[in-house]
Amino acid sequence: MVEIDGARLLADLHVLRGIGRWRTGVHRPTYSAEDMAARRWTMDRLREAGLEPAIDGIGNVLGRRAGGARSLLIGSHTETQNHAGWLDGALGVAYGIEVARALRADPGTRDLPVEVISFADEEGHFGSFHGSRSFVGELGDAEIDAARNRYAGTTLRDALAQAGLAGLPRLAVEPGRHVGYLEAHIEQGDTLEQAGLQVGIVTSIVAIWQYRVTFEGQQNHAGTTRMAIRKDAGLAAVRLAAAIDAAFPKAVGPRSVWTVGNITLEPGAASIIPGRATMLFQFRDAEQAVLDRLDALLRGLVLDADRAGLCRVQIEVLSRSQPKLMDERFQAALEAAAERRCPGWHTRLPSAAGHDAQLMAKVMPAGMLFVPSIGGISHHWTEDTKEDDIVMGCRVLADAAVAILRGD
Amino acid sequence: MVEIDGARLLADLHVLRGIGRWRTGVHRPTYSAEDMAARRWTMDRLREAGLEPAIDGIGNVLGRRAGGARSLLIGSHTETQNHAGWLDGALGVAYGIEVARALRADPGTRDLPVEVISFADEEGHFGSFHGSRSFVGELGDAEIDAARNRYAGTTLRDALAQAGLAGLPRLAVEPGRHVGYLEAHIEQGDTLEQAGLQVGIVTSIVAIWQYRVTFEGQQNHAGTTRMAIRKDAGLAAVRLAAAIDAAFPKAVGPRSVWTVGNITLEPGAASIIPGRATMLFQFRDAEQAVLDRLDALLRGLVLDADRAGLCRVQIEVLSRSQPKLMDERFQAALEAAAERRCPGWHTRLPSAAGHDAQLMAKVMPAGMLFVPSIGGISHHWTEDTKEDDIVMGCRVLADAAVAILRGD
Repeated sequence: MVEIDGARLLADLHVLRGIGRWRTGVHRPTYSAEDMAARRWTMDRLREAGLEPAIDGIGNVLGRRAGGARSLLIGSHTETQNHAGWLDGALGVAYGIEVARALRADPGTRDLPVEVISFADEEGHFGSFHGSRSFVGELGDAEIDAARNRYAGTTLRDALAQAGLAGLPRLAVEPGRHVGYLEAHIEQGDTLEQAGLQVGIVTSIVAIWQYRVTFEGQQNHAGTTRMAIRKDAGLAAVRLAAAIDAAFPKAVGPRSVWTVGNITLEPGAASIIPGRATMLFQFRDAEQAVLDRLDALLRGLVLDADRAGLCRVQIEVLSRSQPKLMDERFQAALEAAAERRCPGWHTRLPSAAGHDAQLMAKVMPAGMLFVPSIGGISHHWTEDTKEDDIVMGCRVLADAAVAILRGD
Repeated sequence: MVEIDGARLLADLHVLRGIGRWRTGVHRPTYSAEDMAARRWTMDRLREAGLEPAIDGIGNVLGRRAGGARSLLIGSHTETQNHAGWLDGALGVAYGIEVARALRADPGTRDLPVEVISFADEEGHFGSFHGSRSFVGELGDAEIDAARNRYAGTTLRDALAQAGLAGLPRLAVEPGRHVGYLEAHIEQGDTLEQAGLQVGIVTSIVAIWQYRVTFEGQQNHAGTTRMAIRKDAGLAAVRLAAAIDAAFPKAVGPRSVWTVGNITLEPGAASIIPGRATMLFQFRDAEQAVLDRLDALLRGLVLDADRAGLCRVQIEVLSRSQPKLMDERFQAALEAAAERRCPGWHTRLPSAAGHDAQLMAKVMPAGMLFVPSIGGISHHWTEDTKEDDIVMGCRVLADAAVAILRGD
């Protein structure tokens, strides 16, 4: 068994925590000075680990091994959501660096080839998974030309120029170079914590199906318009949301989640009957059969609402991803390593959040490991994980990497 | 019986319709060039009708009789909502002018003293009933200092200066000068049209009780947060709105109306569980007992929602007016006149919208007459009323004015 250096790993994570520190968390948005400082820091660590670091035209940092040996790629991302947690993303990159160092330091594993990557903008300040989509060949120049920062409105091109990345070539996955991709991440939910476990082995990354429902009624005076003749679009929206609330629990799977994230009534004044309403709705599940069932249920409820005649109700699909299965051999390697390091204190579970691994899974075998999130909190500066759990996760990842590279 | 000149009345209304014409309606917002042109036009007509016109520091136009005889005041307002109807407000002012002219032309009624008023900003571009509230002494200088145009943000002081009204004294009701106030208006609802009637005699102006309900939950990740531990403020809002929708029909009076005019979920993103929600809710009725019952019902539903534990739910009263009863003697005079002019084609009914008459009723006897609105449409440029109904309404108002002034 290879031994990682837990103290060195924690020290690295605390250095990263200091780059853009915000309360007990971090504010390190994509291409900010802090984000670029973290990327440069990552490149220095990669060099120390014996890898050749490069940064590309979208901000991806890749540490490559000299020579042509087929290697295992390990990574995640170092930028953060605004005023967010210190481990989301940083953990997976620090694990990659530590595993590369640990394998190199041990004569028994020195020749096992590991490469490390830190993707750009997994958190979506400028779009959706730009870094990993660029790496797997799904991000075109036209999309880069059109992208803007969702908070500040800055164009992506300006931000890349400001960060010194304009004109750099973009790195792309090289067919045959990697045996696969491993990513570690905080769970973000509370499944591990509630069960008192230390490690989660991700079975799949759930699909997200998003919809916009629109309700067309008739705007009118809220005093003089009798109830019997109203076509209240807000009321139609409330009735559909209540119908979803009543019907979904009977149709969902054990880990399904569903959310009305927004309701907008127009014109939205106290004394005017809303003439138009819109609702954003999404559900997530890892099972195709459950997704199909919920889609059919939702469409049935929308049809019922439309036929009820109060308003015209229409549904539009905004996005519909497929569940991304993690490689079965990688899952087995992670599980065997977890059973060796923390027997019984691990479980398999789907990821309810999106990760770079879902893009990497399209081009190579991919696996993910979760460590517990205290209180299930994420995307907030209070996000945290116990130090023992952080170290345990890296031990399991290192063992699994060795097993995968040895073909055990 | 005094006889009004229907053709002259309609001609006046069509001239007013041309001042700020917009499609088949009018765009004449308060203190706009068009609004001021309509006020000057009104002053000219008042002068022709033998009255002494004046405009005051808030834009109210008053046509006074020379001499001290106790007179009947008739009026409404000439400004409009944005891109709204040609009769809302203008009808009541044109009626006042026509009644003054008709009484003056008839030797039998020449000495019956009528005065005419056109209030400023009944439609609330800068606040709430500024003109009539100023006239009855409820509008202070501090409120004028603070007021801004709700669309453009212009201060009321700037708008008054632009309109040439800055520094003019404000007219106020003179105790003992008026026997009362009569106002005619389009119904805005469809009660008269549905019943095939020509005239409505307003019994009261309904009270409007307005509330803001806030829901405090916990903002969280819409993927990783299990349904069982969510505190979804949007869902709490939907459940309360659905509970109101289910419970109110059993508790309301025959003419009650209730409206959720706005729902806001925060932060309102597709992938974030709303941590906070707010809802604007109002109901209207003319009966104090019904208002009290609905208030108690609403508070009970809010308490149930809070106790359900999903979120903290709190209710706040935004405004709570009292029903304003129209003077019984004025109602009887209007009804007797309607029965003489259009036997059987009239009814008594409450007003579901607010009017200047509700302010005037605080300081003198007040009465209101409605004419039908085609399709119940108001606050929209398609608003209209049949010419026969327009003329009939003025005939009834003139007869009622004579009866009131004669003390019949």
